[in-house]
Amino acid sequence: MKIDNSPPRGTRDLLPDSVAVRDHVLARISEVYHRYGYHRIETPALEDIRRLQGGDGGENEKLIFQVLKRGLGEQVEDGARVADLIDLGLRFDLTVPLVRFYANNHATLPSPFRAFQFAPVWRAERPQKGRYRQFYQCDIDLIGDGSVLAEVELIEATTEALDAIGITGTTVRLSDRRFLSALAAHVGLAEPEWAGFFIGLDKLDKIGWQGVRAELVDKRGLSASAVDNAQSIIEGLIGPAADKVADRLAEAVPTLPDEVVAEMATTVGCLADLGTGRPVRWEFDPTLVRGMGYYTGQIFEISHPESSSSVAGGGRYDKLVGRSLGKDIPACGFSLGFERIIDLIPDAPARSALAVLFEPEVPISYALERARQARAEGRETTVIRRSGKLPAQLNRVEGQGFTGFVHLRAVSTDGTVEPERPLGVVK
Amino acid sequence: MKIDNSPPRGTRDLLPDSVAVRDHVLARISEVYHRYGYHRIETPALEDIRRLQGGDGGENEKLIFQVLKRGLGEQVEDGARVADLIDLGLRFDLTVPLVRFYANNHATLPSPFRAFQFAPVWRAERPQKGRYRQFYQCDIDLIGDGSVLAEVELIEATTEALDAIGITGTTVRLSDRRFLSALAAHVGLAEPEWAGFFIGLDKLDKIGWQGVRAELVDKRGLSASAVDNAQSIIEGLIGPAADKVADRLAEAVPTLPDEVVAEMATTVGCLADLGTGRPVRWEFDPTLVRGMGYYTGQIFEISHPESSSSVAGGGRYDKLVGRSLGKDIPACGFSLGFERIIDLIPDAPARSALAVLFEPEVPISYALERARQARAEGRETTVIRRSGKLPAQLNRVEGQGFTGFVHLRAVSTDGTVEPERPLGVVK
Repeated sequence: MKIDNSPPRGTRDLLPDSVAVRDHVLARISEVYHRYGYHRIETPALEDIRRLQGGDGGENEKLIFQVLKRGLGEQVEDGARVADLIDLGLRFDLTVPLVRFYANNHATLPSPFRAFQFAPVWRAERPQKGRYRQFYQCDIDLIGDGSVLAEVELIEATTEALDAIGITGTTVRLSDRRFLSALAAHVGLAEPEWAGFFIGLDKLDKIGWQGVRAELVDKRGLSASAVDNAQSIIEGLIGPAADKVADRLAEAVPTLPDEVVAEMATTVGCLADLGTGRPVRWEFDPTLVRGMGYYTGQIFEISHPESSSSVAGGGRYDKLVGRSLGKDIPACGFSLGFERIIDLIPDAPARSALAVLFEPEVPISYALERARQARAEGRETTVIRRSGKLPAQLNRVEGQGFTGFVHLRAVSTDGTVEPERPLGVVK
Repeated sequence: MKIDNSPPRGTRDLLPDSVAVRDHVLARISEVYHRYGYHRIETPALEDIRRLQGGDGGENEKLIFQVLKRGLGEQVEDGARVADLIDLGLRFDLTVPLVRFYANNHATLPSPFRAFQFAPVWRAERPQKGRYRQFYQCDIDLIGDGSVLAEVELIEATTEALDAIGITGTTVRLSDRRFLSALAAHVGLAEPEWAGFFIGLDKLDKIGWQGVRAELVDKRGLSASAVDNAQSIIEGLIGPAADKVADRLAEAVPTLPDEVVAEMATTVGCLADLGTGRPVRWEFDPTLVRGMGYYTGQIFEISHPESSSSVAGGGRYDKLVGRSLGKDIPACGFSLGFERIIDLIPDAPARSALAVLFEPEVPISYALERARQARAEGRETTVIRRSGKLPAQLNRVEGQGFTGFVHLRAVSTDGTVEPERPLGVVK
């Protein structure tokens, strides 16, 4: 019988070279975030199914891997509903668990609290190229600071993290959910229409204004003149005069609250200041929406020319923690698209590894001792039994990434150490 | 409504201090294993339920978190069986996935293959103190080497890893499944009785010989004289003359195959050689069984005086890979009890962190720039808004583990940098 040894559909095995790249990237990102005072936390992979289905996960709630209650018999009772059989699910993001974590542990956490998370999430998506059912998310969140210090710090730290792993040429795109709401109101859309307006606008980069107009006017029944008006305001705000963004927002949508304008001015001013040592390219993008419903203030994404979707995204969500904690706590987060970033990283880090090849007549203990000497110098060293023809084995060993070898043919009687020889020269 | 924000029963949130200890320990262990040529791999958390229930997981197979098939309707069909509704499960160990991984990827992996794994596993255990439903395992495995080079290397690397994290005073306990089988045959037990004999013997440290005898003779119906005979041989083998272990095994059970004796002599000889630089305390323990059914040769555990159960355990399993791959490949593994080890680690690593406190009149951008200067020197630095009385806030900041602070009261007009002051002196 032929056994299928593939991992489950939509998941994958990560081989050593691939894990090495990922660990290397993660170590650099962690190092940067740690310098900003973000410390890693961990939550369990499983959460209560009612929490996961609580409405904060948007479309992702349809993709939950649901876990059967323990202690069920073999036979399902007639008339049972699927919902009766499950009590837990695998998390689909790191934000829902973070909010529960904060609500559960806030008494012992510093305030404000800076959290770093790197962990897998699971989504039962229809398998397609580049979409996995298990993948990693990498989030930083600042809980308990209501000022744009949070936004600026998250953006500064994340662009520095990207720099540290060699991802350059990125652009930070900025907007504000409160601007989008004010715009919708300004052009005459009623509040119940706003959510649909945002969903349509979010598709602009894929379907263009014609498509957005078709969706908003023809499908959702929004006023054509309102949509045209919104288009013209939005198009007027796209452009190079980035330094006057806050003023231009206030002009374009006069009903925009002053604090929204002031906060945008602060964020933009701080990002410009960053420029002295490490220029950060940024732009105001009035078409930026961000999918999740929980955002309440500034929102941002980072684009990279080689990635069709953003490599990072986030924003302020001041009402989400309150839904678990019972009182509102301001919060702001930024999520790095770890899997996308890995696709942009060209190479595995260089390796320096020694192979200790020993002939059958050499005692294992002698080979181990030679390896021990190399390891004591900090060298990655592997003991390998000699087999077949030496040149062929050296080729194999070189193909495995070893950079040097020692060939033990006999126990040295005079106490000398067999010297290392480089690979890549013996063929 | 009061919301329960605890993690699911039997699981836990890991707070920053706790994660810091774990990450620190993991980094040191990884570094040692990496020097031995073990590279990390990763498999998905979910595996096909039939594989998980394939019989290699022993008692753990009863503890699988089972995952519902996707695309089921709301209503379960009458007469449905639980097994019809599930297709995946969360892994309960790292060995079953490793074997699948190797069978799936062996063509592109080096031979022999050295794997390092650190990952969570899930078991739906009845919640009790010190038992979690999600916990980490940390395994190294050497696949493709049939000699005791594997055993010795795994033991050397693992004892070195324990040394590196300050776990000292450990003892390696050694035995061999083939010795236990030969012993059982030698005292006259029939092959179908062996498994029960091993299970009873495995309880010796908990229930003593009287309890073992009661279980084996009274409950399982084994011959009393056979059990007495086994006890006397086993007791004769416990003792200080460790250096002659192989010879004594051959004397005690004359039917023991020569290769088992020779391999034990090699392992013991190599462990003695280790002693020069880094003494490894070890003993032959004829009562050591190891729970899993798949072991085929030498087995070993590491005991620590402060831990009632072993801190690491492993052994040779030459037949397991073959059940997935279709041809036998020798293999040997060692699993560190990561959670138990963490319990033995006294303290979090020391921290050096700077708090940049800024008064409301100081612009955010100025505070951020001061933090940037400290971070450029590699310092962990957090920007904190001034609030309340300064001494009280300094106390809070110190309680959060900060070691120094800068107090920004106004923008410096002459370009001087506000100096850092130590915490712990201002009260």
